Amino acid sequence: MIKPSVPKIGRSMHRADAAAKVSGAEKYAIDWYGEDLLWAGVKRAGIPHGRLRCVETEEARKLPGVLAVLTGKDVPGTNRQGIVHKDQPVLCDEKVRHCGDAVALVVAEDREIVRKAISLIQVEFEPIPGIFGIDDALRPDAPLVHEQHPEGNILLKAEIRMGEAEKAMAECDAIIEETFEVPMVSHAFLEPENGVAWQESDGRTVLVVSTQAPFRDRWEISHALGISMDRIRVIAPYLGGGFGGKDGATVQCLLALAAQHTGGRPVKMVWSREESFAAGYKRHAARMFYRLGARRDGRLHALQCRLYYDTGAYAHLGGEVMALGMEHAGGPYRIPHTLIEGWCLYTNNPIAGAMRGFGVAQVSFAFERMMNLLAEKLNLDPLDLRIQNALREGDKNCCGVTMTQSTGIASCLEKIQQHPLWQKRKEWKSRTGPFRKRGVGVAAVFNAMGYGRGLPDSAIAKVEITPEGRIRIYSGVCDMGQGNATAFAQIAGQILCQEDAAIELLQPDTDRSLPSGSASASRTTYTYGNALIKACEELRKRIIGWAALMLLADTMEDLDLHPGRVRHIKTGKEIPLQDIAAMMTDEVRVCISQFIMPVAKDALDTGKAFSIGFPHLLFSYGAHLACVEVDELTGAIDVKGYAAATDAGRVLNPQVYEQQVHGAIAQGIGYALSEELRVKEGRILTPDFATYIIPGALDVPEIVSLTAETYESSGPYGMKGLGEVGTNGPLPAIANALADACDLSMTCAPLTPERVLRAMKEKKKSGGGNPP
Amino acid sequence: MIKPSVPKIGRSMHRADAAAKVSGAEKYAIDWYGEDLLWAGVKRAGIPHGRLRCVETEEARKLPGVLAVLTGKDVPGTNRQGIVHKDQPVLCDEKVRHCGDAVALVVAEDREIVRKAISLIQVEFEPIPGIFGIDDALRPDAPLVHEQHPEGNILLKAEIRMGEAEKAMAECDAIIEETFEVPMVSHAFLEPENGVAWQESDGRTVLVVSTQAPFRDRWEISHALGISMDRIRVIAPYLGGGFGGKDGATVQCLLALAAQHTGGRPVKMVWSREESFAAGYKRHAARMFYRLGARRDGRLHALQCRLYYDTGAYAHLGGEVMALGMEHAGGPYRIPHTLIEGWCLYTNNPIAGAMRGFGVAQVSFAFERMMNLLAEKLNLDPLDLRIQNALREGDKNCCGVTMTQSTGIASCLEKIQQHPLWQKRKEWKSRTGPFRKRGVGVAAVFNAMGYGRGLPDSAIAKVEITPEGRIRIYSGVCDMGQGNATAFAQIAGQILCQEDAAIELLQPDTDRSLPSGSASASRTTYTYGNALIKACEELRKRIIGWAALMLLADTMEDLDLHPGRVRHIKTGKEIPLQDIAAMMTDEVRVCISQFIMPVAKDALDTGKAFSIGFPHLLFSYGAHLACVEVDELTGAIDVKGYAAATDAGRVLNPQVYEQQVHGAIAQGIGYALSEELRVKEGRILTPDFATYIIPGALDVPEIVSLTAETYESSGPYGMKGLGEVGTNGPLPAIANALADACDLSMTCAPLTPERVLRAMKEKKKSGGGNPP
Repeated sequence: MIKPSVPKIGRSMHRADAAAKVSGAEKYAIDWYGEDLLWAGVKRAGIPHGRLRCVETEEARKLPGVLAVLTGKDVPGTNRQGIVHKDQPVLCDEKVRHCGDAVALVVAEDREIVRKAISLIQVEFEPIPGIFGIDDALRPDAPLVHEQHPEGNILLKAEIRMGEAEKAMAECDAIIEETFEVPMVSHAFLEPENGVAWQESDGRTVLVVSTQAPFRDRWEISHALGISMDRIRVIAPYLGGGFGGKDGATVQCLLALAAQHTGGRPVKMVWSREESFAAGYKRHAARMFYRLGARRDGRLHALQCRLYYDTGAYAHLGGEVMALGMEHAGGPYRIPHTLIEGWCLYTNNPIAGAMRGFGVAQVSFAFERMMNLLAEKLNLDPLDLRIQNALREGDKNCCGVTMTQSTGIASCLEKIQQHPLWQKRKEWKSRTGPFRKRGVGVAAVFNAMGYGRGLPDSAIAKVEITPEGRIRIYSGVCDMGQGNATAFAQIAGQILCQEDAAIELLQPDTDRSLPSGSASASRTTYTYGNALIKACEELRKRIIGWAALMLLADTMEDLDLHPGRVRHIKTGKEIPLQDIAAMMTDEVRVCISQFIMPVAKDALDTGKAFSIGFPHLLFSYGAHLACVEVDELTGAIDVKGYAAATDAGRVLNPQVYEQQVHGAIAQGIGYALSEELRVKEGRILTPDFATYIIPGALDVPEIVSLTAETYESSGPYGMKGLGEVGTNGPLPAIANALADACDLSMTCAPLTPERVLRAMKEKKKSGGGNPP
Repeated sequence: MIKPSVPKIGRSMHRADAAAKVSGAEKYAIDWYGEDLLWAGVKRAGIPHGRLRCVETEEARKLPGVLAVLTGKDVPGTNRQGIVHKDQPVLCDEKVRHCGDAVALVVAEDREIVRKAISLIQVEFEPIPGIFGIDDALRPDAPLVHEQHPEGNILLKAEIRMGEAEKAMAECDAIIEETFEVPMVSHAFLEPENGVAWQESDGRTVLVVSTQAPFRDRWEISHALGISMDRIRVIAPYLGGGFGGKDGATVQCLLALAAQHTGGRPVKMVWSREESFAAGYKRHAARMFYRLGARRDGRLHALQCRLYYDTGAYAHLGGEVMALGMEHAGGPYRIPHTLIEGWCLYTNNPIAGAMRGFGVAQVSFAFERMMNLLAEKLNLDPLDLRIQNALREGDKNCCGVTMTQSTGIASCLEKIQQHPLWQKRKEWKSRTGPFRKRGVGVAAVFNAMGYGRGLPDSAIAKVEITPEGRIRIYSGVCDMGQGNATAFAQIAGQILCQEDAAIELLQPDTDRSLPSGSASASRTTYTYGNALIKACEELRKRIIGWAALMLLADTMEDLDLHPGRVRHIKTGKEIPLQDIAAMMTDEVRVCISQFIMPVAKDALDTGKAFSIGFPHLLFSYGAHLACVEVDELTGAIDVKGYAAATDAGRVLNPQVYEQQVHGAIAQGIGYALSEELRVKEGRILTPDFATYIIPGALDVPEIVSLTAETYESSGPYGMKGLGEVGTNGPLPAIANALADACDLSMTCAPLTPERVLRAMKEKKKSGGGNPP
């Protein structure tokens, strides 16, 4: 008898997709080709703002090997896409709003012809002055990016008010004020935006695309191109990275449009890295004014802040990113009085949208610097100050939501406090060499899970016992590397008591799996996992129930699932799963269950500003510690040690858990030290990995991952989402470590050598004070 | 807005099938014809016992219009059918065991040719002496009906022993002994055994048949004919009566066999009334020796009984009928010491099997007469005696099973005690005319629900929201008139909050509905109803969950189902069910749920005798009261008044409930007064409704139906099965009333005028004593 490898929950297990990925057998969207493949490419605007006069495609059309050259006029539907506001054309028709805007689509026999044809397309514009930053956008006489938008260049203005922040400031013993700025950054996934599409003989359009939201894609295509949703099928293989950048239409509508012009031949589009930088979505640049007041003993008392997010040329998820930023603006702390204002602004910069830490990475930097400045002012230990003010169950957060669910921030901070990296920091700092300074910084972070109020954070799990008696999970949420597929296999294996080898998992396919929302918001394992538990429990009951019929067992209690079979406990009679499955009809072999994430019951009135996505009930927490060494000659920061204590509920798979923490911190280190999408008048100055610097393996220190395991009662086996929270820590932790090392209070990220060196010089010049 | 006609549970509602049945639109199996229809018929043995020498079919085959004449040799499979023991040939191959045995099957163009062809078939037998009764069967030198059966003519011998009955008898102050006999009776349904069958172009065999067990039929056909189960489809329309007589293969295997020889043309078979009497199943004739001992105060103390059931030529459900008889042999009373023995015997009489009151109707007569004899002996009121000994929750019944579920017999008896028919009985009895005597009798009855231990009493409900937004229930259990279809429509309507007109119900079809066992054992509404509740709750959740996706509701709690639509409570936004269904895939629109009836935890050791069907956990109860007037000149009993108090848990539909009670009592009155299948040397002497007398509408008195409503915690909305319990009451209640009227203790049923007159004469002769 094979010893069952269950229970599986809580055990380290290799990723379900590891072997296939390592061996190259797993096919990402970019690996999909088809017979008689065609290629498609896009002519980009190249100017940041202008009215479209004419798109001259005649020359391109004449080029041998070109099948179609399409412009806005050729789009049969609304020609508009966008998750919340449909303001982005598939192919521009009236004006262009950023350099990466698509003005024409070419379909041709090969990529070289596509490239040549694009070069033959002539576009005439009537230029309009561009809006390239927050101040520009807010100017009363500013040209409008979207003339029809009633609020001008303000996509969304919102306010969260709890208590009486202005009055409460007067009651504070210490008040800190500061302004912070963070730049636009890119997801920099290895697999760029890409896909392949074709029409089936019955006229249905099929896409295999690198996407985080296949079900929403179908709706975007349907809306933009006027194709009925049930005539579209989207298949979403494993992603070579997503991080939010594939949460929304990139190639989808373009490819579906192209596929209407190929006579059934498949057509493929792969964005180059430059195109990905120019036309893909970004993390929002932000400017943040903070005013934080506390009592003498360190108790936080009042917070005022004004947050400005540059959302670029189209709305995309800008309003929602800002909402989440505002919701997290006060950190994971008790602050009785808050006034948080936000402005999300249209500009002619590249489009900003979802990125891991969705609006939160920005404010985490600001607020966690504020906490250190406050500790300094009150002469308190920065870690003690955080523990003192940390949210606990029953507290209200800065948006007035009562923490009814697992709230492990204090425990994370205590884990860090007890760790040798903190305990022995003084000794470590003293052991530095010449022209080098050492410092240790901490940051407390948190990140909401799920969509928040106003729309259902729903997943519909589907699990099948195949006619061969195997278990097949039809995942409804993409695995872009986070490892949810492994968690799902664990859940099914645990409940159905089957060997890993007997469990298959299909990545989302709108024809086979069921709508389960996007792979985003740290929600996939939580939401789909909860749905899957119910579906698997139902399947377990169903298998045992049918076995009862076949074994003439008068109660299900006498039957038990074992790997590959059901056993009658009293008699020892067994029946293979395959025999049971053979008796079932197709509809019986499948179990389906929907789960909707619970929502916060108490929510402050924020008027009509936040129709969706605010507030949240569930949060994951983290305490990060960075040990840095600064080169006084170059300004370079070397992260020598890093520890993160995380509360993401129960740990389902320690190995995958650690991988998520490591990945998030590595990405956060890029945000902290080097990544900056530099844009000048709408034109990207860092269009490739030679100029846009992401950390390599050698730039990432050894990371200690500690777990402050709580049990989240609403979660699958007690877990919470882990995908994002870790990204928010490195920038503030490193900035705090830098301050500790060099007494430099940096307000602009990233902390590049140039910027640090300049700050050190300024400081010297001004005689030791902070830079302006 | 249409006012929703919910809640529906507990309300009187017309039967869902009433209009279609009254107008003739509903198609019973017998109403199914097909294009190019052929007919099939059976050549019957005509002798009760003999070895088959030769079946000469040549002449019949030659007859123009004859397509096939088949014998046992032409049956491709095992040629054996039978629910528990496969001992009954489809077409006899070695011997015949009763006059109705099938020896050849004719398929021809019309019924006349079938009849003629049958008359041309010559059969040669080597006759064997027949076994025509219990004494015959038990003779040591008796010829064997089934030579291979290891116990000779004893199909099953079993014993239930609790306490020490023999010893306990010595402790009794009063002991009664008596022997009772009941005859074989027929179900006498209006629609005889019939069906139509054909082969589809893909070779699958389809049957539309008047059956109580379509899923088991598939298995019987598969076994007997060697056709794979998934190549057989059985469709079971509403039945024109069943009562147990269609629980088992009648025409099924014959028709499926015929359909293999028609080149795809449909073939129909309808048994004549004579054929139904000869070849259909019957209620078992039984002989019952009883010995009952009690304490002076009336407390029952010990019971000994020996029950003999004549199961006829084949096992069919004989063993299980006897088991249920034995389980009910001690009535719904506390008796600490019991020894119940049973013998189920093969004879060459027609086959006995399931019939409403499955083994229980027989013992109810015996035991309830015993109770009256005991009351008389102890000079106690017979109703008080019953109440005193009535089972209550926590008691053990005569088989050692603890009554953990609703146990309403005392309350039924009290309802009867309080009723004017009982309260004013003396006055009523005194008001009789010349040569007429009046008497009032009571009886306490009960009847187990479900299959009992050893096999799962399982149902798998399936409910769908159709693409049009209607609700369709795929019933897995037949409605043979009992009204379960109406209960199912009520359940679905209640949970899904839909109008009656929006709910469709399909009768079982093995291709569309799911295995849910037979329509028998008072189980259909309980078992399928419980499964349906879960399926409907899941469908409700599913509809609301999808509506949440479409209305962007962040929690299902804000949504409510209304007739034809889902409503968002806070905003008043509504979405039609049709629109929701349109978004669902086929697999999402269907919900499936299985339920298995709970089983008794404590069961006496009965050795290997009862492998299935013993004991039971759940019982329904009834107290019956009959007011009779006896004509001293003719012996005719006229039932002048009748009241029945029934505990079948919560009443889901008072109208249908009352109809079931009325129907059961009407049938029970037939059993009490007139119905007797007289068989002489295996030949039926009462082959038609001129000689086999069932009560007409005028023979049934006004019946008062009282409900002693309990709440059965395991039941759907608290209900229990009601189909059978009422049948068990009339014979003992009327016999007790007759005893009250004329001081006649009858031990043989039915209480025909001839038998009563003879008993009165005997009594006069013997000077007032009871007849021998």
